[in-house]
Amino acid sequence: MVETARRIVLASRPVGEPKPSDFRDEEFPIPTPKSGEALLRTLWLSIDPYMRGRMSDAPSYAKPVGVGEVMEGGTVSEVVASNNDGFAPGDIVLGRTGWQTHALSDGRGLRKLDPKRGPVSLALGVLGMPGMTAYTGLLEIGKPQPGETVVVSAASGAVGSAVGQIAKIKGARAVGIAGGEKKCRYVKNELGFDDCVDYRAPDFPARLKAACPKGIDVYFENVGGPVFDAVLPLFNPFARMPVCGLIAYYNAISAPEGPDRLPALMRSVLTKRLTVRGFIVTDFAARTDDFLRDMSTWLREGRIKYREDIVDGFENAPRALIGLLRGENFGKQLVRVAPDTSS
Amino acid sequence: MVETARRIVLASRPVGEPKPSDFRDEEFPIPTPKSGEALLRTLWLSIDPYMRGRMSDAPSYAKPVGVGEVMEGGTVSEVVASNNDGFAPGDIVLGRTGWQTHALSDGRGLRKLDPKRGPVSLALGVLGMPGMTAYTGLLEIGKPQPGETVVVSAASGAVGSAVGQIAKIKGARAVGIAGGEKKCRYVKNELGFDDCVDYRAPDFPARLKAACPKGIDVYFENVGGPVFDAVLPLFNPFARMPVCGLIAYYNAISAPEGPDRLPALMRSVLTKRLTVRGFIVTDFAARTDDFLRDMSTWLREGRIKYREDIVDGFENAPRALIGLLRGENFGKQLVRVAPDTSS
Repeated sequence: MVETARRIVLASRPVGEPKPSDFRDEEFPIPTPKSGEALLRTLWLSIDPYMRGRMSDAPSYAKPVGVGEVMEGGTVSEVVASNNDGFAPGDIVLGRTGWQTHALSDGRGLRKLDPKRGPVSLALGVLGMPGMTAYTGLLEIGKPQPGETVVVSAASGAVGSAVGQIAKIKGARAVGIAGGEKKCRYVKNELGFDDCVDYRAPDFPARLKAACPKGIDVYFENVGGPVFDAVLPLFNPFARMPVCGLIAYYNAISAPEGPDRLPALMRSVLTKRLTVRGFIVTDFAARTDDFLRDMSTWLREGRIKYREDIVDGFENAPRALIGLLRGENFGKQLVRVAPDTSS
Repeated sequence: MVETARRIVLASRPVGEPKPSDFRDEEFPIPTPKSGEALLRTLWLSIDPYMRGRMSDAPSYAKPVGVGEVMEGGTVSEVVASNNDGFAPGDIVLGRTGWQTHALSDGRGLRKLDPKRGPVSLALGVLGMPGMTAYTGLLEIGKPQPGETVVVSAASGAVGSAVGQIAKIKGARAVGIAGGEKKCRYVKNELGFDDCVDYRAPDFPARLKAACPKGIDVYFENVGGPVFDAVLPLFNPFARMPVCGLIAYYNAISAPEGPDRLPALMRSVLTKRLTVRGFIVTDFAARTDDFLRDMSTWLREGRIKYREDIVDGFENAPRALIGLLRGENFGKQLVRVAPDTSS
C-alpha cells in the first residue's frame, strides 16, 4: 500500500459560523522533492482565530484562501527527505505549510527549531506568533506603566495569557476576562493574574468594575462584542487599546441591530483621549529578536506559563477551528498531525 | 446713569439643541478691583463647539458650567482699571473670563497681547486655541508625510482651515469637507486646499472618494456623523485619525438607532491598523512656544489664511453658539462685545 498525503481545502465560503461542510478533506500522492526542495511531514498544525478571516473574501490585510485551495496555517514539521543543502532529514522546522500532512518547500520562510531548547510546539504558541502578538501589542501600543491596570480578553488563550503575564512582569496590575469559572480560576491561580472575570456571569459589568478599582489604563482587545461594552466606561484618561482581534464579530453576517454604539465610543475617545490602534504581529517584525530573547528568558525563569489544547488527528482540524471561534478551547489550540518524537 | 455690566449664565441644561431660553442675560454692577486685581472690559468673546459640552453634566474632561453660573469662554479684554502691578489700563489681555462684559482678575491665566503684531482677535483663533488645536493634533497625532492625503471636516472653520493649510506646508495633499458650495469654494480657492467636498451633496461619498484617489492617510475628525461613514472605507493601511471634535453628536439626546456601526469601525481599525486617538489642546501645552513661533511665521509669510465670522453685540452670543452647532458660521466665530480700537 502506498502511503498518501492529505490536505484540507476550503470547500465553500462560510456564511456566519463555519460548518464542517465548508471544508473538504482530500488525498493526494506524497510529492517528491525536486532539486533545492525538501519534503516536510507536518507534526503540529496551529489553529488561530485569524483563519476565519482567510475564509472570507471581505477586504482585509491578507488575501483570502481561494475556494478549493489548501487552508493556510502555521506548522511545525519534520524534514523527511531533502534535496536542499540547508535541510537534512530529521530537522524540525517552523513554517506556514497549511492544513496538509505533507508539503514541499524550497526552504524560504522556514526556521529550524532546536528540540533541545524545549517542546517544538511552543514555536506555534508562546514562543511563536501568538506570544509575539502579545509582546508587541502590549509593549509597543499598550505601553503599561508600573501600577497601571491592564485588562485582556480571551485571557486563557494563547495571546491573552501572555499579555497578562507580561503586564505583571512590567509591574502592572493584570485583570483577565475569560469564559467560565474554570478558565478564570486557571488565569488567576496558575497564570498569576491579579483577577479574572467571567464574561458569562449575568453581572459581568459590575464584576469587571470591581476588579478594576482604579479604572483601566490598557485594554488588549481580542474579542469585541459585549465584553467591550463593559470595558468602555472604565477607561481612564489617556488609556490605550491595542486591537488584536475581534473574535465576536468574525462570524457576523451583517451589521448588528442598533442602538448605534459608535457615537458613544467616539465620545469616549475624545473626552478620555483614548488611543485605539489596530495591529498585526508582522507590523513589528523588527522586534522578533527582542521577543525571542525576552520570552525564552521568562519561560526559563518560570515567569511565563502556558497551556496547550491539543486535538489529535489531522481530520479534526475543522472542528478545532469551529470550537476555537466558539471559545471552546482552553489554551493554545493545536492539532497533532503526527507523533512528535523530537523533544 | 451708572454703567452696568452684563453676563450670560446657563439658565437650564439643554436637551438636544440649546434654545435661547437655556441662557439668561443678567445685569450686575461693574465690580471694583481690590488690591492685586485688575478690572477687564471684554472686547472679544470666542464661540467654540466645546461650549456645548460644558452645558451638559455628562462626564467629560472638564467639569460642566453649573446652572446659574456664567458661561465659560475665551476672551480678549482691555484693562480698564488695575491694582495689579503686572497690568495697566489700556493693556490688552487674553483670558478666560467667560460670557460677561466685565470681569475682575488677579492676573493668573492672563496673557498680554501686543496689538502692533496684528489684530488681537487672532489670539482667539488662528493664533490661539483653535490654531494650536490644529497644529498639535495634526503634527503630534496625524503626522502627515509628504505626498500623503490629509482629510479634514469642518474645513472652513477655525480648526479645520488651519489643519489643511498646515498639511499643505508639510507637503501633503489636503482635502476639505464643508457644508455648501460657498464654503467649499473658499476652502479650495482662498485657503489653497487641493480639493473640498460638500457633505450636503447627495453623492457625497462618491465625491469624497474621487477627491482622494490615493485613499486617506490622515483624517482630522471635527464632526462625526455621516461624514465619518464616508471617510471610513477610504482609509489606507496605517492611517491616523486625530479626534478633535464630534459636533454632529453634541446635541444628541440618546444613542442613535441602528445599525450598530461600532463593529465595522473596529474591523477597519484591525484590518487596516488604524490609529484613532482623541486629544484636547491642553494635552500638548508643552508645544505652545513651537506653535506660536511657527504659526506667526506662516501668517507673516502669507502661507496661512484665516477668516473670522463676527457677530456684533454681547446679547447675540447664545444665537452665535446655536448657529455654530448648526454649522451656520463661516470661519472663526467671534462676538464683538465692545469696539476694538487696539490695532
